[in-house]
Amino acid sequence: MSLKVSPLAPHSYPDMPPIAGVSLGAIEAGIKYKGRKDLAVIRFSEPAIVAGVFTRSKCPSAPIDWCRKHLQRGKASAVVINSGNANAFTGKKGAEAVAISADAAAHVFNCAPESVFLASTGVIGEPLNAEGFREHLARLNPMLSEDGWANAARAIMTTDTYPKMATQSFQIAGKRFSVNGIAKGSGMIQPDLGTMLAFVVTDFPADHSQLQTCLNEAVEPSFNSITVDSDTSTSDTVLLFSAPEPASSVGSLPDNALDMFRTALSEVMLELAMLTVRDGEGASKLIEVTVSGAEDDQSAKRIAFSIANSPLIKTAIAGEDANWGRVVMAVGKAGEPADRDRLNIYFGDVRVAFAGERDPGYSEAAASAVVKRQEVPIRVELGLGDGHAKVWTCDLTHDYIAINADYRS
Amino acid sequence: MSLKVSPLAPHSYPDMPPIAGVSLGAIEAGIKYKGRKDLAVIRFSEPAIVAGVFTRSKCPSAPIDWCRKHLQRGKASAVVINSGNANAFTGKKGAEAVAISADAAAHVFNCAPESVFLASTGVIGEPLNAEGFREHLARLNPMLSEDGWANAARAIMTTDTYPKMATQSFQIAGKRFSVNGIAKGSGMIQPDLGTMLAFVVTDFPADHSQLQTCLNEAVEPSFNSITVDSDTSTSDTVLLFSAPEPASSVGSLPDNALDMFRTALSEVMLELAMLTVRDGEGASKLIEVTVSGAEDDQSAKRIAFSIANSPLIKTAIAGEDANWGRVVMAVGKAGEPADRDRLNIYFGDVRVAFAGERDPGYSEAAASAVVKRQEVPIRVELGLGDGHAKVWTCDLTHDYIAINADYRS
Repeated sequence: MSLKVSPLAPHSYPDMPPIAGVSLGAIEAGIKYKGRKDLAVIRFSEPAIVAGVFTRSKCPSAPIDWCRKHLQRGKASAVVINSGNANAFTGKKGAEAVAISADAAAHVFNCAPESVFLASTGVIGEPLNAEGFREHLARLNPMLSEDGWANAARAIMTTDTYPKMATQSFQIAGKRFSVNGIAKGSGMIQPDLGTMLAFVVTDFPADHSQLQTCLNEAVEPSFNSITVDSDTSTSDTVLLFSAPEPASSVGSLPDNALDMFRTALSEVMLELAMLTVRDGEGASKLIEVTVSGAEDDQSAKRIAFSIANSPLIKTAIAGEDANWGRVVMAVGKAGEPADRDRLNIYFGDVRVAFAGERDPGYSEAAASAVVKRQEVPIRVELGLGDGHAKVWTCDLTHDYIAINADYRS
Repeated sequence: MSLKVSPLAPHSYPDMPPIAGVSLGAIEAGIKYKGRKDLAVIRFSEPAIVAGVFTRSKCPSAPIDWCRKHLQRGKASAVVINSGNANAFTGKKGAEAVAISADAAAHVFNCAPESVFLASTGVIGEPLNAEGFREHLARLNPMLSEDGWANAARAIMTTDTYPKMATQSFQIAGKRFSVNGIAKGSGMIQPDLGTMLAFVVTDFPADHSQLQTCLNEAVEPSFNSITVDSDTSTSDTVLLFSAPEPASSVGSLPDNALDMFRTALSEVMLELAMLTVRDGEGASKLIEVTVSGAEDDQSAKRIAFSIANSPLIKTAIAGEDANWGRVVMAVGKAGEPADRDRLNIYFGDVRVAFAGERDPGYSEAAASAVVKRQEVPIRVELGLGDGHAKVWTCDLTHDYIAINADYRS
């Protein structure tokens, strides 16, 4: 089936600055889709430092097992990503396909198999045939280039309707550093303390432990704060690579250098997450849910997700119905501390509920005007403590059903 | 909007045997709907013993507050139920509407307001105007009758497409006892250890504590094992009344009498729960999810609900796509102990996955044949322990979106 581009798609894509020693590309490997590229590569001319976070699913894919195992070494020469097949729940055959893929890349790129990182996205449970990968990678190798970001971002799409790219740069002592990221994701999106497929590369010279710490911090308010459909993938992966110029190190930079990197990384991660939720399957509106006054931040986040995952709220927004009573319902069912009689609810700047009942100045017209927007902010004040959270989701439309009732067949 | 009757509706309704001293009826009070009855009454000529379970929502409706408070007394003279307005999140006005309703019923039925039990279902957050209830109840009073079960069951419907009734009878020492129940519910259904609106009446002479214990037991495998959309209502209520013949008591019955009652009650509760999920908003298929081999029953139930609430699984079933990989996903995301490599999955009797990968004898045709049925059994074996659970849900179709994108407006 051919999908129309999300109405929430960005109007333009960023120019991704080249990062020295990092080349990318993609090729048609015929894994599932016809007439489009489905095998992408990120190649590091010198081994890059790597950090990663992965799905907490109890049924992780074979590539996740592989990446977790080799992340300890913390060095990457290449990343090979395919779409059309998740290589998840594929047992021994899955592990074999992973080994074949890594061996193929090691041969073509002249590196150790353990320095090849792998990710797969697509159907769960179908064996992945990787026998042809060596030939495909050999054909792709001479085509890899420093400006291949968009090619790679397109090749990893499944039900995505647009490629997802983000970049931030900063200068330290006259030297410019960049953080470039690509991601994919549209359905099966509620990354659970891991995330969807995303690959972020920087020339900032951090060590493994710094990279991993910065990544863990950046994941929480970005990918771990979005949901399309409450479903968590078997394949969620974020890999962050540092590919600095030879002989550069964070030790030679000023004290605030790591902070500048951390800020740039957070921006890129948030932008990739927002691009993902804006491409939520069938999305017609972006919903931003803010919860304040909760007992603590974790409680606020659970309540925010209870709202963001409620099919009744998501369908109401799709129908441009300011049915704020369903927000009350979602707060009530979250299983977190809440006092009905202190609850305030806002749609945009319109206070619709105050102190446990409909706002005395409630205006259906004013509330309706907010839900007619393409971006709908919903805010809940609990009045209990200082806990705060913000999460994003999209509405639930007929197109979600259409996409998912016949995705596999 | 007018809803087509669920294809999972029962082909006929049971004949509800009269229960001596219990009369029912309904009347058009014009609360929200036009041209249909929306105010129902169950009247006990002698005060009935009552037990109840209610939503665990942190934002319970005003009638829930009222019932919780007066359940302690354990005696009921009448139940007044309205549809079209949930009287939830209505603050002081809600509490006033409840008091007005109880006073009106007390006046008309010549009883104490505290012996009037109340339930409301419909839109959340709109004040309920109960000023007219006294006049409506006075008109209704002479029309109450022992065979008014279907009338009452119809009057409490909202987006329900058919009335929900169930009955069981049993004989003890030549005396016949009955358990009659009515319920409503179609959307906002994942009763959280409370349940949806359901009213069950028996002439079995149990005391308050026996009734409450039997009810608590019966709720768990029935209403607490169904979900339509993972959303938990502010108004979920089950009330169970014992209206025995005067001077009868459980003490005068044989030892196994309470067990016979418990069995009949469980049957009635399960049937009402199944009728509710079969009328799930937009449902075209009934899905039965069985999880075995979990660490314990609670863990099994969480995994079963993770499957039953996955929009990706529910849309796949709607599309008759045997996409069992999504079952793997839902097991993985449940946050409960699971070992990917021991997992077996069945669609009906067809084993689709075995020991962590696609079944060696997997047949797409055989799996597809199961999901083409109107009732689709999904079974997961975890291979960890003895934990077992069974829950029911329906599929997620375009009609769910259509119903909920414009329910309130």
